[in-house]
Amino acid sequence: MNDETILLAHGSGSRLSHELIEKNFLPSLANPLLAKLDDSAVLDFSGRLAFTTDSYVVSPIFFPGGDIGKLAVCGTINDLAMSGATPLYLSLSFIIEEGLTLSELARVIKSIKAAAEEAGVKVITGDTKVVNRGSADKLFINTSGIGIVPEGIDISGANAKMGDKLILSGAIGDHGIAVISQREGLKFSVPVQSDCAPLNKLVSQMLGASSQIHCMRDPTRGGLATTLNELARQSKVGIRIEEGKIPVHDGVRAACELLGFDPLYVANEGKLVAIVTPSDAGRILAKIKRNRYGTEASIIGEVTDEHKGKVIMRTRLGTSRIVDMLSGELLPRIC
Amino acid sequence: MNDETILLAHGSGSRLSHELIEKNFLPSLANPLLAKLDDSAVLDFSGRLAFTTDSYVVSPIFFPGGDIGKLAVCGTINDLAMSGATPLYLSLSFIIEEGLTLSELARVIKSIKAAAEEAGVKVITGDTKVVNRGSADKLFINTSGIGIVPEGIDISGANAKMGDKLILSGAIGDHGIAVISQREGLKFSVPVQSDCAPLNKLVSQMLGASSQIHCMRDPTRGGLATTLNELARQSKVGIRIEEGKIPVHDGVRAACELLGFDPLYVANEGKLVAIVTPSDAGRILAKIKRNRYGTEASIIGEVTDEHKGKVIMRTRLGTSRIVDMLSGELLPRIC
Repeated sequence: MNDETILLAHGSGSRLSHELIEKNFLPSLANPLLAKLDDSAVLDFSGRLAFTTDSYVVSPIFFPGGDIGKLAVCGTINDLAMSGATPLYLSLSFIIEEGLTLSELARVIKSIKAAAEEAGVKVITGDTKVVNRGSADKLFINTSGIGIVPEGIDISGANAKMGDKLILSGAIGDHGIAVISQREGLKFSVPVQSDCAPLNKLVSQMLGASSQIHCMRDPTRGGLATTLNELARQSKVGIRIEEGKIPVHDGVRAACELLGFDPLYVANEGKLVAIVTPSDAGRILAKIKRNRYGTEASIIGEVTDEHKGKVIMRTRLGTSRIVDMLSGELLPRIC
Repeated sequence: MNDETILLAHGSGSRLSHELIEKNFLPSLANPLLAKLDDSAVLDFSGRLAFTTDSYVVSPIFFPGGDIGKLAVCGTINDLAMSGATPLYLSLSFIIEEGLTLSELARVIKSIKAAAEEAGVKVITGDTKVVNRGSADKLFINTSGIGIVPEGIDISGANAKMGDKLILSGAIGDHGIAVISQREGLKFSVPVQSDCAPLNKLVSQMLGASSQIHCMRDPTRGGLATTLNELARQSKVGIRIEEGKIPVHDGVRAACELLGFDPLYVANEGKLVAIVTPSDAGRILAKIKRNRYGTEASIIGEVTDEHKGKVIMRTRLGTSRIVDMLSGELLPRIC
């Protein structure tokens, strides 16, 4: 156990900053581009470049199934993958509250290393700031990412077409419930693990199975309901889903009932929704189900020309209702 | 005056998040790539790509000569420019403390817009998180940047060569003293403004004047002394500078005397050090002096084969002393 803590001086650009980087970051994340430690990483690139950014402020920083490091890598990789891009490189920027222990930081860096290796991406540039106690909450991480979009791929939230099928890659709500349970010290009889995972290899398998994937998005903050509303608005189409087709784990269902949440609005970090041409839907679904992160995938609905910009759900009772975008705040600091 | 404040729900991915982006961010920063609002921005790119990231936690967020928005754009642009890259695109990620006023946010976004326009870069992807009161301090910003390095340019902290000249683009310490004065409510008879500025056009003029610029770096956290030590270590050379050649404004000198600081360690946000082949030094210096951000530039020293990895300064008194890297913390949250 390492009880040393992060001091303000670790963020000052001083000798201590250099030691932190050289002893704590470089050994785990080493690659020739990062090791140069210039102000920018420089590399050759040719093709369609995807670029994305996300800051992660999840509380607590460690939760069942992951931590802020794994989340920061997976979340940004997934944003790239949702554009059809093959993720290649990440930047990594820490804002650390004075007093974080070096052992906590080491755990986070170990997770970053593991997730980056699984996804096949490299961290090539970074930054570390330290703020005084009380000016942040332990640790915030920003990751920005660069990927390459293969020839012929054109995936956008604006591309959904009438008749397209909606595929959901698995059960919803695991991440949000895992984080809130940890934060509030709630114990459920069926424990819930975050689904946090890098989906780039799953996406690459899907793209291998069909060139007719029109939209992809990972339903993070705001949950599946908000993501589907975004897609309906961007594509100016209606979306119809069936409640009975949407997988929800028992633990999540129980927790949601207890807490008064609707799983449709609870965040996921290892799921995707794809809107695909109907004739390819079966083939894409079969491919997804063979991936470890897609075993519970199902076709949950379709794109319609009714109720443009809206999402309609046929409930288990056989009635229909509008599923709106999240309004207000459900769970702060979930990612 | 707009007294509305940022709520947790502005960061939830909800309707309010979408409204914040559509009403407050898009109108100022609009461009076709950003407007798509997909998870990643996608664009064609071919060549040598420079990629960098920085998080900004400056306190206070408004200070004489700039604010956290201007700083976040200029700082990342300058990191790209120091690799010889032409900055093209930025990502912009906010971590906002609940309670920040919308008018404060609007001021910051206005600065971001102005700095991005001056530098000729576009913000093409972004993210907004909101944390509860007390979990951050008003506003943190991460900007990551992409640029293109022109053919034939090879600038790195490891490239300094024996006999090279050191050019400093202007007076040191302005940014650090401006921020600390504002934070502590200090009034000096000669007020100090931050030098925060985008240096990419200056760099492009320098590259037009000579292909023999070996190293460039902007002396931010840790000041000129720390930057020169980094370069001496990376290039495995000695660096000799002359105190009498390093411009320091009167206000900075007076503040440093009062506060017990050495201007060599105080942060700059609109200055660069270039290490260049001796025969081109005069021509490069002349070019720098014609740029509005380089009027006080001077040749401050040279690269030697003595004291490898160290920086030696000849003082105004004619004695020589080792100038070490900053050890410990001088001014927290300066950038």
